[in-house]
Amino acid sequence: MNNFQLTTTQMLERAEKYFSQKEVVSRTDLKVHRLNYKEVGQRCRSLSDSLEALGIKKGDRIGTLGWNHHRHLEAYFAVPNMNAVLHTINFRLPQEHLIYVINDAEDKVLLVDAQFIGLIEAIKDEIPSVQHVILMTDEENIPETSLPSVYLYESLIEQGDPTYQYPENIQENDPAGMCYTSATTGKPKGVVYTHRSTFLHSMTLGLAETTGVQEEDVSLPLVPMFHVNAWGFPYAATWFGTKQVLPGPNVTPQLILELIEQEKVTMSAGVPTIWLGVAQALEQGNYDTSSLKAVICGGSAAPKSLIALYEDRFNIPFIHAYGMTETSPVATLSRPLSKHKELSREEQLNIKATQGRVVPGLEVKVINEDGEVPADGETMGELTIRGPWITDQYYNAPDKTAESVKDGWLYTGDIATIDEDGFIQVVDRTKDLVKSGGEWISTVALENGLMAHEAVAEASVIGIPHEKWQERPLGVVVLKEGADVTKEELFEYIKPMFVKWWLPDDIVFVDEIPKTSVGKFLKRALRDQLSDYYLQEQ
Amino acid sequence: MNNFQLTTTQMLERAEKYFSQKEVVSRTDLKVHRLNYKEVGQRCRSLSDSLEALGIKKGDRIGTLGWNHHRHLEAYFAVPNMNAVLHTINFRLPQEHLIYVINDAEDKVLLVDAQFIGLIEAIKDEIPSVQHVILMTDEENIPETSLPSVYLYESLIEQGDPTYQYPENIQENDPAGMCYTSATTGKPKGVVYTHRSTFLHSMTLGLAETTGVQEEDVSLPLVPMFHVNAWGFPYAATWFGTKQVLPGPNVTPQLILELIEQEKVTMSAGVPTIWLGVAQALEQGNYDTSSLKAVICGGSAAPKSLIALYEDRFNIPFIHAYGMTETSPVATLSRPLSKHKELSREEQLNIKATQGRVVPGLEVKVINEDGEVPADGETMGELTIRGPWITDQYYNAPDKTAESVKDGWLYTGDIATIDEDGFIQVVDRTKDLVKSGGEWISTVALENGLMAHEAVAEASVIGIPHEKWQERPLGVVVLKEGADVTKEELFEYIKPMFVKWWLPDDIVFVDEIPKTSVGKFLKRALRDQLSDYYLQEQ
Repeated sequence: MNNFQLTTTQMLERAEKYFSQKEVVSRTDLKVHRLNYKEVGQRCRSLSDSLEALGIKKGDRIGTLGWNHHRHLEAYFAVPNMNAVLHTINFRLPQEHLIYVINDAEDKVLLVDAQFIGLIEAIKDEIPSVQHVILMTDEENIPETSLPSVYLYESLIEQGDPTYQYPENIQENDPAGMCYTSATTGKPKGVVYTHRSTFLHSMTLGLAETTGVQEEDVSLPLVPMFHVNAWGFPYAATWFGTKQVLPGPNVTPQLILELIEQEKVTMSAGVPTIWLGVAQALEQGNYDTSSLKAVICGGSAAPKSLIALYEDRFNIPFIHAYGMTETSPVATLSRPLSKHKELSREEQLNIKATQGRVVPGLEVKVINEDGEVPADGETMGELTIRGPWITDQYYNAPDKTAESVKDGWLYTGDIATIDEDGFIQVVDRTKDLVKSGGEWISTVALENGLMAHEAVAEASVIGIPHEKWQERPLGVVVLKEGADVTKEELFEYIKPMFVKWWLPDDIVFVDEIPKTSVGKFLKRALRDQLSDYYLQEQ
Repeated sequence: MNNFQLTTTQMLERAEKYFSQKEVVSRTDLKVHRLNYKEVGQRCRSLSDSLEALGIKKGDRIGTLGWNHHRHLEAYFAVPNMNAVLHTINFRLPQEHLIYVINDAEDKVLLVDAQFIGLIEAIKDEIPSVQHVILMTDEENIPETSLPSVYLYESLIEQGDPTYQYPENIQENDPAGMCYTSATTGKPKGVVYTHRSTFLHSMTLGLAETTGVQEEDVSLPLVPMFHVNAWGFPYAATWFGTKQVLPGPNVTPQLILELIEQEKVTMSAGVPTIWLGVAQALEQGNYDTSSLKAVICGGSAAPKSLIALYEDRFNIPFIHAYGMTETSPVATLSRPLSKHKELSREEQLNIKATQGRVVPGLEVKVINEDGEVPADGETMGELTIRGPWITDQYYNAPDKTAESVKDGWLYTGDIATIDEDGFIQVVDRTKDLVKSGGEWISTVALENGLMAHEAVAEASVIGIPHEKWQERPLGVVVLKEGADVTKEELFEYIKPMFVKWWLPDDIVFVDEIPKTSVGKFLKRALRDQLSDYYLQEQ
């Protein structure tokens, strides 16, 4: 059999050849760009050529700090296709982490949106590996800057050769990209994606079984392109000749809905907080979302109430997925099985609210101290995963690798149950689980119970130290604007859902729940903020 | 990234674990079996264990001569999962070829349907590598036979260990299967499939872009399991937890339609002659085919009239695909693009009647003496393909390899055009193309023109030697039962479709067109049979 290597080059070349007129719609701070794949392909080649002229060689890392737009998309292909490595950087990282990841990756070039040039100026003396900064902007002149070597992206595109030929000797296990986890504790950890892992992960997104990305779709990735390759959608969409809509900076729910309506978006991917915001805008405004075949939600658990809202009220199919930086990211995805068609709506929603089944190509095990837990949908254990797009190491960090990877299996740090059909329900992060009197309580289940109440906008449950039970759950609730409900009413509401000892000892109301830069609840900060308060109440 | 190997083991294990209750319906000569994937999985393990007990080791070849049934399906996994190699044999091969392929592959064991035991008895002294014959039958006793070492499949299942553990050290480039081309001239040529090629090809069948096999489907492969792994459907269906219906021996159009109705089949794959037969049965009988999402047709070109019949009259979506033993087989597949939705029905049918676009993962080029032909949908050249499930060699045959593989590209021997969207139209086999006065005439186009006439059941066009033009086309037509049409009427009918010099010099009526054992027109035999006749007419 042909030892043909699985590379990102083949993916772009397919779009160039057969979908030359299909569109990439890209919103930047100044205007909306409309390019086709022929143009995108030529611009990719020009960029590769210019990067080569700047001295970039095989294996060199190129960092990006950018929103979701066509230049970022071009870097997604131009960099790995020339056998360099695309390092997408979360521009919301604290400064010390920004410095850390650039140094750890030893980025030689940074591709930076004009908006973020200040971030780089502030740290320029602490990132010695960086030789050049390239400004991804519509402006025709370089702004005043203290940076020594700055280029305009568009000038490099003009100067580069649009017929540049990618090297044909790329090996599929060569690194193609890298991304750091947005650490809530400690330093960010680097994950390296290979051409092979990107290719196989993209193929998975095309399965009818999963998200089924195909030519006739219109893809709107709301998840940032710095965050695990926007879950792989830019790669899959390009490969399959799918029209892409890249929403650019300062995305609001209204803008999202306008783009969906105007561009006839069929699939869009984002975290629950995004979809919560869009839901509120949908309730207030009047938008045509009939083109949507699916919204895909991951990053953290989507409450069942949110799924019901989309499917039953807005008539928008909702796909709940699960993954992490270490898993490329799509690992499991909740599509009910054929036999579930006969279930009641409520039972179907319970299934849709799980993290779903492992996608073809990967393997999962849920492990506790006794080994693999029974597939009973009840017994909790740590979720472990392995497969060709699951990392088995952290970059430059053998100690972190040893903590998280054992025998080729990635230990996710998520506590989950699994049922006989393979549906996985993540009940908590290992470190967020409340351990009350030696028993485990799922904070995620309690949060979903609270969020199902119509007055609740967001809810988080954290463990608070307790003299007798070691730890007890505390509910933290943000009410919807203008909503009015008492603590007692909330308790009455969730009581029938849980055994008595799972119920929080108290519920407190706050204005806001602190979140990580990618929209996940930052429970550590919440615990710091609330542990005192709680102890006073006792 | 995890160096996780892509193997068939993972595919079966997914079905065992998560789809244990999904069904495999299998028709044998004595009865209809209903098994679930848990049972199939256990039986696979028992079979592997028993084969190991018979001395089968890594890399050994196991031949099969069987219809489409559950035991054949079990061999599809049991053999490669134990790191042996599954050699599916076309039981319709002439005896000399049967001997040749068994000796060339050096099969150690043959798994044989009871019906074919006579074939093996007749050649038993000429296949010295074969140590054991295993009878795939429902009978409880071994029939009288002159073969020395015969086992009952079901006894081996009983004796084997249903918890047998597959080796974990299988490498993805290890051979998993092999299949010989059904040669029309010369000896059959062997193609070896690897675990990797089988895995990637199966994944492709799951793409929404292609056939989109998924859990909720019910798959009915009509293409024989000896023929390029029944186009990969048994592998994909098992992996994705799809219910399978395996139709067994002596399949008739009526049986096919009964199975579709009873088992609620959603997708079925077969050659044009199968679908022609089914169409006739559909016109005569009353069957519920509403469960069908698609029939997939390949092996040879499907006439446009057949596609229109299925889609417009029977309301059954028809997918035209192209491939060959050397391509695993799915290489191209005709799904119209989103922009084609606005075309007239006639234009859409023209697109559906092409062989379609190359599937993601592969690359094609259409080559003539000047290099790659322009993508104008008109210029003819030889279709070449490469990719991770395209062979780059024939087994034990460096001379054949050198003829067909150049620079990693497989030269298919098919003459094709390609348009700017990548739609490929196979106009002929290299060796069947009519070369008239230095110009090429597509016999496939002429055949489709003739077959579009309502009185025509089958049509073939062959080149006949001609003094002035070197070669001229001759139409050979089989009329439908009871149909009545004159040669002159047929000429009138096709005249508007072609330029004058493409029209056949004559049309002759025959009772039957000779076919290969996999249902393709055997033009060589037709030429032998008709060249004299034609010359008399001149």
